[in-house]
Amino acid sequence: MFRKTAFAAIFILISAGMAVAADDLMKRAQGQFKPIPQDPPAIEGNAATPEKVELGRMLYFDPRLSKSQLISCQTCHNVGLAGADLQEVSTGHGWQKGPRNSPTTFNAVFNRAQFWDGRAKDLAEQAKGPVQASVEMNNTPEQVIKTLSSIPAYGEAFKAAFPGEENALTFDNMAKAIEVFEATLLTPDSPLDQYLKGDEAALDDNQKQGLKAFMDKGCAACHNGVNIGGSNYFPFGVVEKPGADVMSEDDTGRYQVTNTAADKYVFRSPSLRNVAITQPYFHSGKVWSLHDAVEIMGSAQLGISLTNDEIDRITEFLETLTGHQPEVTHPVLPPSTDNTPKPVLD
Amino acid sequence: MFRKTAFAAIFILISAGMAVAADDLMKRAQGQFKPIPQDPPAIEGNAATPEKVELGRMLYFDPRLSKSQLISCQTCHNVGLAGADLQEVSTGHGWQKGPRNSPTTFNAVFNRAQFWDGRAKDLAEQAKGPVQASVEMNNTPEQVIKTLSSIPAYGEAFKAAFPGEENALTFDNMAKAIEVFEATLLTPDSPLDQYLKGDEAALDDNQKQGLKAFMDKGCAACHNGVNIGGSNYFPFGVVEKPGADVMSEDDTGRYQVTNTAADKYVFRSPSLRNVAITQPYFHSGKVWSLHDAVEIMGSAQLGISLTNDEIDRITEFLETLTGHQPEVTHPVLPPSTDNTPKPVLD
Repeated sequence: MFRKTAFAAIFILISAGMAVAADDLMKRAQGQFKPIPQDPPAIEGNAATPEKVELGRMLYFDPRLSKSQLISCQTCHNVGLAGADLQEVSTGHGWQKGPRNSPTTFNAVFNRAQFWDGRAKDLAEQAKGPVQASVEMNNTPEQVIKTLSSIPAYGEAFKAAFPGEENALTFDNMAKAIEVFEATLLTPDSPLDQYLKGDEAALDDNQKQGLKAFMDKGCAACHNGVNIGGSNYFPFGVVEKPGADVMSEDDTGRYQVTNTAADKYVFRSPSLRNVAITQPYFHSGKVWSLHDAVEIMGSAQLGISLTNDEIDRITEFLETLTGHQPEVTHPVLPPSTDNTPKPVLD
Repeated sequence: MFRKTAFAAIFILISAGMAVAADDLMKRAQGQFKPIPQDPPAIEGNAATPEKVELGRMLYFDPRLSKSQLISCQTCHNVGLAGADLQEVSTGHGWQKGPRNSPTTFNAVFNRAQFWDGRAKDLAEQAKGPVQASVEMNNTPEQVIKTLSSIPAYGEAFKAAFPGEENALTFDNMAKAIEVFEATLLTPDSPLDQYLKGDEAALDDNQKQGLKAFMDKGCAACHNGVNIGGSNYFPFGVVEKPGADVMSEDDTGRYQVTNTAADKYVFRSPSLRNVAITQPYFHSGKVWSLHDAVEIMGSAQLGISLTNDEIDRITEFLETLTGHQPEVTHPVLPPSTDNTPKPVLD
């Protein structure tokens, strides 16, 4: 009887100890990361309405925003491919290669700023970039407005999305509509998010070890918050520069935006949301395996050699950042008219 | 009293006469054209199941079928643009220009054969063409199978779509799945279809005059049936060859398929379903205005000069062929793995 009771008491003590440890990990994680919400966040100065979201959805998918009328936001930010394009760097007008890997539009509304170098303060400012970039959509605001104005249904859709504005069909409003649509592209309910909400069973032991290592080793210093990254700027290769195959000398990152020496090779830390399905990695897109990417980050950013087991566990943890992918209905785009400018492919 | 009665009698006679004339037009139209059905037709030897349609939807939108992993069926057959691409000719791998205008996939299941020259007997055979064409997706069946096999969810999806087949993930089955998905891309309920089903008010007077002219002048000789075309082969420029700007000497049409002199410059008549929103026109894609296209057809195929009024009426009638566009949910595509071949852009 005594032995049975003692055994039970020890069992209770051990269980309690484990529970505390598990609870500790969850509490630490909850202090570092936040779940993706179910609903789009409000955007200051750009209130979402069903009409504006619907217009944004049309514009996001409409290749007529590009000079060739072949390339849309969706081309490089494919809603079926977690908001990115599975390419080293994106391919644009005339099959030209872009300079950097396409960042996902999913959850991008939670990033501090947009583009790898943060040169756009929000998604509306971002949306205007690729439309005009010569290696991307290669268009001009004037031509975009001429095109959209030639399509009566777009005139109506802009009026409905921006009621009370005398001249609703503008390049700025195009960008604002795309912004509110993109804010709907969220991936909630990842295993990590379920865990953060208190579901102890949402992560298995390996994933929990990975989560612990992710925090203990220092990854969470740059990758935290709701997007597990995306919230601040850091030099790439802060401890050890990766090889030129991964990090080209030519791309000086945020330095190109600020012209400040301290910003040389500085990039906005990317969100790790859906990282397991948005290969390849880094601004160069040179690394295809998540395992390799974790290893490189260990040496480049933390100056440590992660063991193979640690890399495996962290990779398994990163796989828990894959959330529920949004199901987007492809818009029926309003037809062109005789006044619509023709595609120009040269 | 007498005058009142006589007036009423005359009114009845006139009404009856109009009714007969209207009824005649509807009857004639019903003899020439058939409405698009609400549901996809059964395909011989390729029974549709929800699993197969779903797999086909994924494949239709998956750019990983192409060597560059940038081009999908959707690129040139955009479900938001009535199943076509609003381009003179399509642009493919390496920004190469294809030889002909992209025909719509919408209602294509009702065509007698596929491609402008009818070289594919059905949509499954058609689907294999662009995947391999060097100016389109530039891929090989072996590479497609290697790619799809590297993605576990595709293995499962092929098994579910082709149950009982030992080796379900094949190039043939890829094409069959795409075929059953494409058979769902129908545009029923156009004004003409409502008219064919007995709704006298579905067409206005101008459109009815256009319908009458379309039949009287001979257009319906090549453009009839459920797809208002697509059912047989005819020489382009049978009476008067259009200028080389519209009809290049180099494209000999069906002759390239049959090597028979009689097939020189012979093409399958295109379906006119949704013609008002699938510009530009002809296999060359050189004509952007439907009005111009009607005029050219009058002289080239019928040897007549249509008056401007006749062209206007026929154009107005053709606008009644725009049906209800399908709303397609963009698939969430299964993620690539470390074994998935990388995109090749060269």
